[in-house]
Amino acid sequence: MTTRQMSLCAFLLRHGHHVAAWRHPDTDLVAPPFAVYRELVEKAERAALDAVFFADSVALTGAPSLEPITLLSALAAVTERIGLIATATTTYNEPYHVARLFASLDSISNGRAGWNLVTSDNAAEAANFGRDRHVEHGQRYVRAREFHQVVDGLWRSWEEGAFVNDKAAGKLLDPGRVRQLDHQGEHFRVAGPLNVPPSPQGRPLVVQAGSSEPGRALAAATADVVFTAQPSLAAAQAFYRDMKERVVQQGRTAHSLRITPGIFAVVGKTEGEARDKFATLQGLIEPQAGLALLGRMIGNFDLSGYPLDGPLPALPETADGQRSRQQLLTQLAQGENLTIRQLYERIAGGRGHLTVVGTAAQVADQMQLWFENEAADGFNLMPPTLPGGLDDLLELVVPELQRRGLFRTAYDSSTLRGHLKL
Amino acid sequence: MTTRQMSLCAFLLRHGHHVAAWRHPDTDLVAPPFAVYRELVEKAERAALDAVFFADSVALTGAPSLEPITLLSALAAVTERIGLIATATTTYNEPYHVARLFASLDSISNGRAGWNLVTSDNAAEAANFGRDRHVEHGQRYVRAREFHQVVDGLWRSWEEGAFVNDKAAGKLLDPGRVRQLDHQGEHFRVAGPLNVPPSPQGRPLVVQAGSSEPGRALAAATADVVFTAQPSLAAAQAFYRDMKERVVQQGRTAHSLRITPGIFAVVGKTEGEARDKFATLQGLIEPQAGLALLGRMIGNFDLSGYPLDGPLPALPETADGQRSRQQLLTQLAQGENLTIRQLYERIAGGRGHLTVVGTAAQVADQMQLWFENEAADGFNLMPPTLPGGLDDLLELVVPELQRRGLFRTAYDSSTLRGHLKL
Ligand SMILES: Cc1cc2nc3c(=O)[nH]c(=O)nc-3n(C[C@H](O)[C@H](O)[C@H](O)COP(=O)(O)O)c2cc1C
Ligand SMILES: Cc1cc2nc3c(=O)[nH]c(=O)nc-3n(C[C@H](O)[C@H](O)[C@H](O)COP(=O)(O)O)c2cc1C
Repeated sequence: MTTRQMSLCAFLLRHGHHVAAWRHPDTDLVAPPFAVYRELVEKAERAALDAVFFADSVALTGAPSLEPITLLSALAAVTERIGLIATATTTYNEPYHVARLFASLDSISNGRAGWNLVTSDNAAEAANFGRDRHVEHGQRYVRAREFHQVVDGLWRSWEEGAFVNDKAAGKLLDPGRVRQLDHQGEHFRVAGPLNVPPSPQGRPLVVQAGSSEPGRALAAATADVVFTAQPSLAAAQAFYRDMKERVVQQGRTAHSLRITPGIFAVVGKTEGEARDKFATLQGLIEPQAGLALLGRMIGNFDLSGYPLDGPLPALPETADGQRSRQQLLTQLAQGENLTIRQLYERIAGGRGHLTVVGTAAQVADQMQLWFENEAADGFNLMPPTLPGGLDDLLELVVPELQRRGLFRTAYDSSTLRGHLKL
Repeated sequence: MTTRQMSLCAFLLRHGHHVAAWRHPDTDLVAPPFAVYRELVEKAERAALDAVFFADSVALTGAPSLEPITLLSALAAVTERIGLIATATTTYNEPYHVARLFASLDSISNGRAGWNLVTSDNAAEAANFGRDRHVEHGQRYVRAREFHQVVDGLWRSWEEGAFVNDKAAGKLLDPGRVRQLDHQGEHFRVAGPLNVPPSPQGRPLVVQAGSSEPGRALAAATADVVFTAQPSLAAAQAFYRDMKERVVQQGRTAHSLRITPGIFAVVGKTEGEARDKFATLQGLIEPQAGLALLGRMIGNFDLSGYPLDGPLPALPETADGQRSRQQLLTQLAQGENLTIRQLYERIAGGRGHLTVVGTAAQVADQMQLWFENEAADGFNLMPPTLPGGLDDLLELVVPELQRRGLFRTAYDSSTLRGHLKL
C-alpha cells in the first residue's frame, strides 16, 4: 500500500516572493528572463515536483515579466514531466482563445497543462481593456462560471473515434463525432468546435484561487486544485473542511479536489541561519515598496501620508474582491497592535500565506502537520528569492519530505493529472 | 559589395498546402503535432531560412492544428536563429493580449518574433465570438489600424534607461522612462504600459497579408513585410509597384517594406518526376474537399448541387473580403472555359499563388525572374506535402538559389529584423 502523498508545486514569481527579493544578491536582474526560468524549472523537474505555476496579471504591477502561456510553451519543449500551470483571467478574455491556448499547451507538453482560472482583482487591469473599473465582484464570478463552461465544452469537442485518418477512403474526420458546442448564454455565444486536436490529458487541469463565497462555489463546481493563502493551521483546516464539504455537495468525491495552500519558507542549515536570511531580506524592504504592497492588499488605499511607525488608519470599506484580505489585515494589526511598518513587514514575504523560518526539518514538520490534519493535500512552494530560495526548498526540504515518505522520489506518470492521481 | 538577397520564409500548414496532402503517403497523421513541426523547423533553420510562418484561424477549417503562438514559443526554445511568424486576428482579439504574446515570444526567442496582422475573413470565426457575422470589411480595417497603433504603442513602453536595476539604491525602474500609453480611440481605450520587459528586436516584425484597398493602405502604413498571393508575373509586378509607391507616399523608403508572394512548388529531379508527383496529388483530391475549398474561396458558396463537369454557375456578389478572389476565379473559369472540377484542381495546390511544377533549376528560374523584375523581394515557400515537399524545397531549390548568389548560405545576424536587413 502506498501512503497518501503530498502534491508539490513551485510558485515562481519574477525575482522570488519576498517584496525585496530583487534587491537580494541572489537575484540576477539582467539575464534574459527565459534563460533564468528555464534553469529554475529544470531544477524543479529534477526534484520531481508536480508542477510549476506562473501567476499573471494583465497590467503592470511591480516588475514586468514574460506572459505565462508563451513562457510555459517554451518550457514544455525543454522539459519532460513537470506540470505547467498558468493563470488566465476570465474577466478580460474570450473563452475560445483561452480554450485554444491551454489545449495547445497540453498537446505541446504531452499532457502537462493546467489553467488557473481567476477573476480580475487588480484594479489596474480594467484600464487596459477599455473600462474605468471592473464589473462588480459577483458578476465577475457569474461570467467566470459561464466562461469555464464554454472552455470545458470546447475541450470536449473531439469524441472517441473523431479522427478516422483513413487516407485510402479519403476520410480524415468523422463529423458525427466532432461536437458542435452551440453555447448560448448570458455572456457568451460560442459555436465551436475547438480547432486544436485532442491532447493527452483530454482536458487540462483546472485550478481556482479565489476564496470568497462565489470563489469557493466556483472551485467546488469546476476545479481540480485550489490554491489558497492560509496563515494558520486553524484557518487552513476551516477552509479545507468547507471546501471538501462543498465538493461532496456537488456530487464529487472529496479527493477529486486538491487543496494546496501556499508556504513561504526561509530555510537554513540551522534555525539561526534561517533567521539571519530572513532578517537580511526584511532589512532590504524600501518603505515605499512596503507601503505599496500593503496598500494593494487592503484594497488600493494610499498609505503614503501616514506615519510609518504609527497605527493603521481606519479604512474605507473596499470592493468585494479585496474585502476578506482587508479584514484579515486590519484584525491582525489591531490584535497585535502593529504599526504600519510592522504590518507591511509581516506580509512582505508570505503575503498572508503560511510562513516558516527555520531548518528543513522545521519546515517539513509544519507541512506534515497540515498535511496530516486536514489542512492541506499539498503545497504551493513560494521561494523567497530566486534561485537560492528555490534551491533551499528543493535541496533541503524536498529530500526531508521524501525521507518521511510524504513525497515521491521520482515521477511515476507522465501527465499532470497523473502526477496528482486525478 | 553584397548583392541583393531574397528573403525566404517557410509557410507551414498542418499537412502541406495541397488540399489532398493529408492523403499522401508522405504525411504522418498520428505523430504528436509538436514533434512533427519541430523537425520541420529544425530543417528550415539548417537551410538558414529567414523564418517559418504559421497561419491561423479562430474556427475549425479542415484539420485541427496547434495554436500558433504557443507552437512558436515552444519552437523558440529548441531553435537559435530562425524567425517565428504567426497570425493573430485583430477582429476578435484585444490589443493588450496580442502585444504581450508577441513581446513575450520575442523575448523568449531572443528577437525572432513576427506578427501577421489580419482581419478576420473566414465567416465561421464570428460564431465563436458571439456574432452572427463579421462587421463589415471596411470597419474591420478601421479596427485593425487602431489595433496596430495600440500594439505598437505598448511595444514602446520602455524607453532607453527605464531599467535602473540599482539594488543598493532600491531603484528598479525609472518611472519617468516607462511610457504610459493612455490610448483613447474609437475601438480601444488602453492605459498601458505593457507588463512584458523590452525584447531584443524592440518591436516584433509586422506582416500584413490583405490585398484589398484598405488592406494595402494598412500595409503601407504599418507593415515590414507583405504576404501576397500572385498568380502571374504581370499581376505580381503590378502589386509590387503599387505597394512600393504607397510606402513611399507614407514617407518610408521603398525597401522598408518587403513584398513576398507565395510559391507553391512541386519539385522533382527531372521535370517528368515533378509532373508525376503533382499528378499523384491531384489524383487524391476528393470531390467534396475540392468543392469545399472552391466554395470557401468564392465567398462561402455551396457548390454541391452543381455537376462537377459542368460550368461554374453565376455567383451572388460576395462580401468585400472575398470579392477580389471571387472575381479572379470567375474570370479564370470563364477565360479558360473550365468546369467546376477543373477549377478546383487549379487551386487545389497553390490556391491562387504562383505555382511551378518542375526541377529545382526551373523553380529557381521563376523565383529569380520575379526577384529581378520587381515582382518580389523574397518568397513564402509553400510545400505541397510535409515533410517531403519541404525537403525538396530545402535540399534542391535553396542550394540552387545559393549557387546563383541569390540567397545566403548561413545566418549573419541573430534577429528576424536582422535577417531581413530591416
Ligand atoms: C496562490 C494564489 C495565486 C493567485 N494567482 C493569481 C493570479 O495569477 N492572478 C490573479 O489575478 N489573481 C490571482 N490570485 C487571486 C485570486 O484568484 C482571486 O482573484 C482573489 O483571491 C480574489 O478573489 P476572491 O474574492 O474570490 O477571494 C491568486 C490567489 C492565490 C491564493
Ligand atoms: C500568404 C497569406 C497568408 C494568410 N494568412 C492568413 C491567416 O493566417 N489567417 C487569416 O485569417 N487570413 C490570412 N490571410 C488572408 C488575408 O490576411 C486577408 O484576410 C484576406 O486576404 C482578405 O483581406 P483583403 O480583403 O484585404 O484582401 C492570408 C493571406 C495570404 C496571402
